[in-house]
Amino acid sequence: MANDAKPDVKTVQVLRDTANRLRIHSIRATCASGSGQLTSCCSAAEVVSVLFFHTMKYKQTDPQHPDNDRFILSRGHAAPILYAAWVEVGDISESDLLNLRTLQSDLERHPTPRLPFVDVATGSLGQGLGAACGMAYTGKYLDKASYRVFCLMGDGESSEGSVWEAFAFASHYNLDNLVAVFDVNRLGQSGPAPLEHGADIYQNCCEAFGWNTYLVDGHDVEALCQAFWQASQVKNKPTAIVAKTFKGRGIPNIEDAENWHGKPVPKERADAIVKLIESQIQTNENLIPKSPVEDSPQISITDIKMTSPPAYKVGDKIATQKTYGLALAKLGRANERVIVLSGDTMNSTFSEIFRKEHPERFIECVIAEQNMVSVALGCATRGRTIAFASAFAAFFTRAFDQLRMGAISQANINLIGSHCGVSTGEDGVSQMALEDLAMFRSIPNCTVFYPSDAISTEHAIYLAANTKGMCFIRTSQPETAVIYTPQENFEIGQAKVLRQSVNDKVTVIGAGVTLHEALAAADHLSQQGISVRVIDPFTIKPLDAATIISSAKATGGRVITVEDHYREGGIGEAVCAAVSREPDILVHQLAVSGVPQRGKTSELLDMFGISTRYIIAAVTLTLMK
Amino acid sequence: MANDAKPDVKTVQVLRDTANRLRIHSIRATCASGSGQLTSCCSAAEVVSVLFFHTMKYKQTDPQHPDNDRFILSRGHAAPILYAAWVEVGDISESDLLNLRTLQSDLERHPTPRLPFVDVATGSLGQGLGAACGMAYTGKYLDKASYRVFCLMGDGESSEGSVWEAFAFASHYNLDNLVAVFDVNRLGQSGPAPLEHGADIYQNCCEAFGWNTYLVDGHDVEALCQAFWQASQVKNKPTAIVAKTFKGRGIPNIEDAENWHGKPVPKERADAIVKLIESQIQTNENLIPKSPVEDSPQISITDIKMTSPPAYKVGDKIATQKTYGLALAKLGRANERVIVLSGDTMNSTFSEIFRKEHPERFIECVIAEQNMVSVALGCATRGRTIAFASAFAAFFTRAFDQLRMGAISQANINLIGSHCGVSTGEDGVSQMALEDLAMFRSIPNCTVFYPSDAISTEHAIYLAANTKGMCFIRTSQPETAVIYTPQENFEIGQAKVLRQSVNDKVTVIGAGVTLHEALAAADHLSQQGISVRVIDPFTIKPLDAATIISSAKATGGRVITVEDHYREGGIGEAVCAAVSREPDILVHQLAVSGVPQRGKTSELLDMFGISTRYIIAAVTLTLMK
Repeated sequence: MANDAKPDVKTVQVLRDTANRLRIHSIRATCASGSGQLTSCCSAAEVVSVLFFHTMKYKQTDPQHPDNDRFILSRGHAAPILYAAWVEVGDISESDLLNLRTLQSDLERHPTPRLPFVDVATGSLGQGLGAACGMAYTGKYLDKASYRVFCLMGDGESSEGSVWEAFAFASHYNLDNLVAVFDVNRLGQSGPAPLEHGADIYQNCCEAFGWNTYLVDGHDVEALCQAFWQASQVKNKPTAIVAKTFKGRGIPNIEDAENWHGKPVPKERADAIVKLIESQIQTNENLIPKSPVEDSPQISITDIKMTSPPAYKVGDKIATQKTYGLALAKLGRANERVIVLSGDTMNSTFSEIFRKEHPERFIECVIAEQNMVSVALGCATRGRTIAFASAFAAFFTRAFDQLRMGAISQANINLIGSHCGVSTGEDGVSQMALEDLAMFRSIPNCTVFYPSDAISTEHAIYLAANTKGMCFIRTSQPETAVIYTPQENFEIGQAKVLRQSVNDKVTVIGAGVTLHEALAAADHLSQQGISVRVIDPFTIKPLDAATIISSAKATGGRVITVEDHYREGGIGEAVCAAVSREPDILVHQLAVSGVPQRGKTSELLDMFGISTRYIIAAVTLTLMK
Repeated sequence: MANDAKPDVKTVQVLRDTANRLRIHSIRATCASGSGQLTSCCSAAEVVSVLFFHTMKYKQTDPQHPDNDRFILSRGHAAPILYAAWVEVGDISESDLLNLRTLQSDLERHPTPRLPFVDVATGSLGQGLGAACGMAYTGKYLDKASYRVFCLMGDGESSEGSVWEAFAFASHYNLDNLVAVFDVNRLGQSGPAPLEHGADIYQNCCEAFGWNTYLVDGHDVEALCQAFWQASQVKNKPTAIVAKTFKGRGIPNIEDAENWHGKPVPKERADAIVKLIESQIQTNENLIPKSPVEDSPQISITDIKMTSPPAYKVGDKIATQKTYGLALAKLGRANERVIVLSGDTMNSTFSEIFRKEHPERFIECVIAEQNMVSVALGCATRGRTIAFASAFAAFFTRAFDQLRMGAISQANINLIGSHCGVSTGEDGVSQMALEDLAMFRSIPNCTVFYPSDAISTEHAIYLAANTKGMCFIRTSQPETAVIYTPQENFEIGQAKVLRQSVNDKVTVIGAGVTLHEALAAADHLSQQGISVRVIDPFTIKPLDAATIISSAKATGGRVITVEDHYREGGIGEAVCAAVSREPDILVHQLAVSGVPQRGKTSELLDMFGISTRYIIAAVTLTLMK
């Protein structure tokens, strides 16, 4: 232990030499690719050397081992130094490093989990620490294991508020297995960072947010070794190590100079610079990383079965957002790695039902949706949990960048958005999600569920738990009737045809509240002798194009979509795109236009033209043509 | 002045009485509507009383006067107390207040600028202070006027990172005309706020972020008067007043009790509670707010003319994102209220060209996109500036919630997003915007420009400057040829037909880099004797449906869209929706599918099937059918 705190002279020299070898790799790699954030690599060389070869415990040949310490390069643009570290560890060849940024290389400009040693993609700043919080929370409270989490951050990215959300979260949950390193190298992309070398200001902020802190010379490997060791001794507080460094450290005329962000050294100077750095290297060996303590539990998060059918009868009235809470609590019984995250809305989103039954797996993330999503991403890395994060759907817009990056992270998380559309009614316009389908549909590999009753909501929860990639489930506030029997089977990408006859004249597609409006319209029209086919798409992405097209063809090519969402990016456009290569199918979209206002649900459905009577009018109009 | 710091006994009593009258209004209003955040109103009653009737200077009958002090209720759910204050000021009748939340009322659940005394909509937490920063920045540096800005915040919303982005901004710019009040009432929606009554912790955080602070009893009107006066004396630092309060103050059994968030008092108890509060009122008069100093400059932000045509020749090669910087600098010459905001990317987004020419109107917002958008919103309130905020388009996703709220705010701001699509190439996948069109299209009243050359980019800038509502301009990194003459005229919603003949077989719609790919495809196909019509939509929203439909009809109903954006929510779906009610028009979409990777632009356009040869293949395929 004493050796951890104060390494011997030889170890110190090897760590210094390793830092310089990391610099050389970074110079070579960025020169070969003609670009890259070399200067940010150089400021962090000693930090990375100490972390990878003195502090962190991990299996060199198994970077994804559950017991390994985690390392998150939040400042993703310093990727070359991460790759350089793995060259020194032995998992990447030097020749691969020189192919940085060719089309064939997985060594992307910013790290992504296409590489086995990367848990979350970074490259949009200020997101790494939130994910690190999720990993640390999982380690401390769910795995109850020894592994620790280290997050390397830039000074510039501390301007992102998401960083402070994570700071507040980590101290609130006493994450003493988490260490954040601020690499305060003074310079941002376009000029000095706002606080320049005011490392003490960073330190004050970290302390005000409840963290243990150390201010160190980030190029002093002895000081770094000691600070990391001290951090490991602190109980119930996360530690921030504020490392004062110089951007471009070790490169004459570039160190601490402006206008070198994102640039390699000039090709003609590279050899001389490398030679200079090599001249400072005194040893020719590598330190062997320490092995981890293997104490994470064995777990399984696949193939979760619905042990009993949903306990609702056709005609029961219940809000899908309430069903969500009940279904989640049930799911929690089926698998003990199901966790739920909430943002101070558990009593509105009904995630409190889960909390009551499984309090140890409920994470209150308070009013900080960006961090909630990042924590969920972190909790789900290495397949440690099945994470459901719930919020008013409108407030997931706060985390769009985190969700976008989640797709690059190949994230396996589930988002449940309540209070969708104008049917949210009295809660007011700022609380109504009217762009959430557009947002989630645009995320690659995201499955978008829009269940319309309690039975389908419960199935959506189970399907989401068993589906790789991101899943979004859109739930609604109004109480609506159960329309499916408990025996009904649901599949992703399979629509349900709810009203059907050989005489159907128009296909009407609705979801959530508008499906019920469509059913009422169909009943009404049926009394007038007009048969209408009604479809519940169940998932908006993937959309069941085959069922929609065949129904459209069977109903004279006449389709009406009706949705509690803005016109752009929602169900209507998805349907238009799905039928766009079919001749003779016309689609009439009913959707919300313009900024709505608060009011009663029924008033608002009428005001925005998505109620039963507007569907009836649209059917009538369509048949007149 | 002494009186400001230490009001006389009578003034103190009237302020106390006013606070209680505000409570009574809030009780009546929330009872009448059956819901509403009464308890958050009661905790803030003394703060609001002192601000509106002792501290703030404004014209009672002209709430939008440019010289008035500004008040932002960041915690929008306490709207009833804001409305109550304006009842006491005399701008709202009591009967209107009792109609709170009926469909006819503009007194929404959360404040919106449909009311003359509201500058920005709130209701999504943590956004008010950023807007307040924009107003204060405008007051201090652009208007150089005496008005001050007051922002009332909840304790719970301090969990939102955007709050700390604003804190950092305000101290960096020495906004001594800005006062934030934290109403620390301990309780959030679903339970205690994380720090409960730890007001000193809020104070430490504010101080660490460079603010002057006072910790006061938020129900002590004398202490509040003094703190606000002291704040007015502090130079070069914004002030945070941390007010320790009790949620539901003054209501027996509800004060400081859980589970009363968002609820009125029980109807049957209302009269007794009102009577109790009335019994504490000793005076029956109102204080008259102080008049403002009238020293804001007269300005005009309308009808900005392009004084000379764009200085490009057909065939010149230049990136649209560079043109943006040049056009903006030119626009800045035409109107001195044009301002530009940037997030540490001015050297990538070329906003540095504007900065060089107009440094006093350039606001560096560092890496904090949420706050950048909020500051822009604030700067643009009351028509004080024409604000352009520029960032990598991908990073506007960070501010989707602010943009969404901006639509409710009827915001008049312009967003310029660079580095769109896979054509961003070498900078890597996290930097590529592939969902920005989906996002901005979903925002009501947002005009979405997607210029394809330098001439149209310059026109887009001028049109945006003259257009009410939000505008988004999507720009690209690759250098592309100028295709329009300097004399070409551009209008919102008017597409350009670039290739046209009576023999056209297919209509191809592209924008940005893909328009150039489409033109190359058309040239190639023309050599094979296949005529193709090529359309530049110029604005994606509104989309020129008439031109698209007439072109489609003229080309056998065959349309191909090609875009450097994900399939969902982009140009293809917009076109599909636009033609969805026309028979015999088929649309074939070429768009990016799946998470891309970094590479050379030309490699990536090919890899994702949106290059010239894929357009040629799509045309050929379409004609085979």
